[in-house]
Amino acid sequence: MTKVSVDEVKGELTDKDYQALMKEFGIDPIDSYLKKLAEKVELAPMYRRGIVFGHRDFGPIYEAIIHKKQFAVLTGFNPSGNIHLGNLMFLKQALFFQSLGADVFIPISNDETYVFRKGNLEDATKNAIENVIPDIIALGFDEKKTKIFISTKHPKVYELAVKLSAKTTISTIKAIFGFNDSTNPGQLFYTIVQAAHILFPQLEEFDGPKHVVVPIGIDQDPYMRLVRDIAEKVGLIKPSSTYHKFAPGIFGGKMSGSKPETCIFLNESPNIAKNKIMKSFSGGAPTLKEHREKGGNPDIDVAYQYLRFFLEDDDKKLKELYDGYKSGNITTGEMKSIAAEKLVAFLKDHQKKKEKAKDKVDKFLLH
Amino acid sequence: MTKVSVDEVKGELTDKDYQALMKEFGIDPIDSYLKKLAEKVELAPMYRRGIVFGHRDFGPIYEAIIHKKQFAVLTGFNPSGNIHLGNLMFLKQALFFQSLGADVFIPISNDETYVFRKGNLEDATKNAIENVIPDIIALGFDEKKTKIFISTKHPKVYELAVKLSAKTTISTIKAIFGFNDSTNPGQLFYTIVQAAHILFPQLEEFDGPKHVVVPIGIDQDPYMRLVRDIAEKVGLIKPSSTYHKFAPGIFGGKMSGSKPETCIFLNESPNIAKNKIMKSFSGGAPTLKEHREKGGNPDIDVAYQYLRFFLEDDDKKLKELYDGYKSGNITTGEMKSIAAEKLVAFLKDHQKKKEKAKDKVDKFLLH
Repeated sequence: MTKVSVDEVKGELTDKDYQALMKEFGIDPIDSYLKKLAEKVELAPMYRRGIVFGHRDFGPIYEAIIHKKQFAVLTGFNPSGNIHLGNLMFLKQALFFQSLGADVFIPISNDETYVFRKGNLEDATKNAIENVIPDIIALGFDEKKTKIFISTKHPKVYELAVKLSAKTTISTIKAIFGFNDSTNPGQLFYTIVQAAHILFPQLEEFDGPKHVVVPIGIDQDPYMRLVRDIAEKVGLIKPSSTYHKFAPGIFGGKMSGSKPETCIFLNESPNIAKNKIMKSFSGGAPTLKEHREKGGNPDIDVAYQYLRFFLEDDDKKLKELYDGYKSGNITTGEMKSIAAEKLVAFLKDHQKKKEKAKDKVDKFLLH
Repeated sequence: MTKVSVDEVKGELTDKDYQALMKEFGIDPIDSYLKKLAEKVELAPMYRRGIVFGHRDFGPIYEAIIHKKQFAVLTGFNPSGNIHLGNLMFLKQALFFQSLGADVFIPISNDETYVFRKGNLEDATKNAIENVIPDIIALGFDEKKTKIFISTKHPKVYELAVKLSAKTTISTIKAIFGFNDSTNPGQLFYTIVQAAHILFPQLEEFDGPKHVVVPIGIDQDPYMRLVRDIAEKVGLIKPSSTYHKFAPGIFGGKMSGSKPETCIFLNESPNIAKNKIMKSFSGGAPTLKEHREKGGNPDIDVAYQYLRFFLEDDDKKLKELYDGYKSGNITTGEMKSIAAEKLVAFLKDHQKKKEKAKDKVDKFLLH
């Protein structure tokens, strides 16, 4: 297997980069499935817009959707910080698959926070319960079809990890993740725990083996290759995955929780969020005159991209924004204002819902 | 630290071997503490007879006993098999310390069974509940001062292991235990889980940091050195340990659960146990005539050693047996019969108690 550090992919990937990575990792384009699926259901914007571009083994998921069979979607969250727009990519896919019948499983990896030295375990657990889980619930997940679990708090996680751990070797994990012996053993074992998270929906208490789709960024592909290899050895079904493009950070590049200045968080004050948008990286021309004459570049304009990724669900309106910016009819300031206004409205609404969601945490949390 | 495989010590150690290992590992003789302790309390036979010979950091345990302060004793069991006489060494020490005021903690390491490929997880867990724990309870542990927990079933085990895991490195563990990269990651991480077992009595729910003594065989010393090193880094008290000599197997050598023919199990049919004793390795002379003339060697006679280790608590009677065998007055057959009779009585009584103990498992088990 190819040795890929999970930090290797920093964002700012061109379509050519994505193509190369797909080829290297053996990821297939998802277009043909989406085309067929679009005949039956309404695709969420990120599927219509090429943001979700690749898959591994999506066939059985497609079949489950079409034939209304049981399947699950899984996406985890490291509670070292708070949820930002970039993380929404995973959660919005989970919502989409839930709307198509999937059970949603969301592991909260407080152990990951700790072993990778992003914070202490108690703070991560507290943040999970007080912030992360209410944020997730507020996005609109169905109480009856969503199971959230905290990695160190649900005893089946470690038990399943123990079972999986005997099916691989330290050298395999090193080859996949690029660890060396100065790594702490918690980091090494966490790769197995993450495999346990991904196979968790296939436990007997959730009706046993089933197809599970895991929306991931391409940088997380090593985990999928490990878990698919192990799944087979323990009589479980190899999980499928979808791959999406990274949402840009405020200044371009990748939106990364470890660099808060690049992010807009779901718990951000709407005013601060607005200011972040107003100073975001722009695809406009250097002067207004030049912009009116030659137009701007929406493909690299962060405000436009946020509309495309998160804020404008209407494809027709989005196209008008794209064309207007490209032609110079819409200025950089106008594009930012449009994005900021929609963002402020979203955050205000979300934050209200989040307050209410705090009382529902126990209903979503598996014990 | 010295590199020691946990399988390196096979038993049949001479006093000289024990001396050398004590020096190599930095283990102190325990005699002076036992002498002082004997002035205050009645020592259990294995302390009076030099079977427990060494310690690391016993001072605080001695102080806790003398001043009636809170302390704990911890001994674990791998439920891949059933408890045999050799395992009693640990449990009898736990009983002794409990009689002196200690809380007893007994982790049952079903994860160890599995990652070291001694059986599957479900069988190990079932065996723990149906056999191992009733056997332990039947030995006479105090329900109010004994906490038994199954490693994959108590969520605090993994949580504590996660915390400890960030305080060491893969290379440190390799150096201590002699693992290489073909090892499965579960074995590597289990060294941390065992450290979590040992530090478990110091969790907040058991009143936080306290002195804990761990009775071990000298082959388990690497675990103690790892856990003492880690304990300090997480603000817990370094646990103490005592070291005992190995009880001989039926044919001499070490009594080892992985070689059932060397063992007498607590669930053994009394008749089979009797037969095992009757064919055990003897220190008698080749012929009866020679035995009567020159005498036998009780130091290598398995039947005598079982009386010394487990079956004859009365020091005066034991000395009579020793002297009688040495002088040739007691024959090999007689010595075996004496041991067999006592063993049969012990097993019958124990097995009755075990049946009753099966109803008490839930009272001893931490959930």
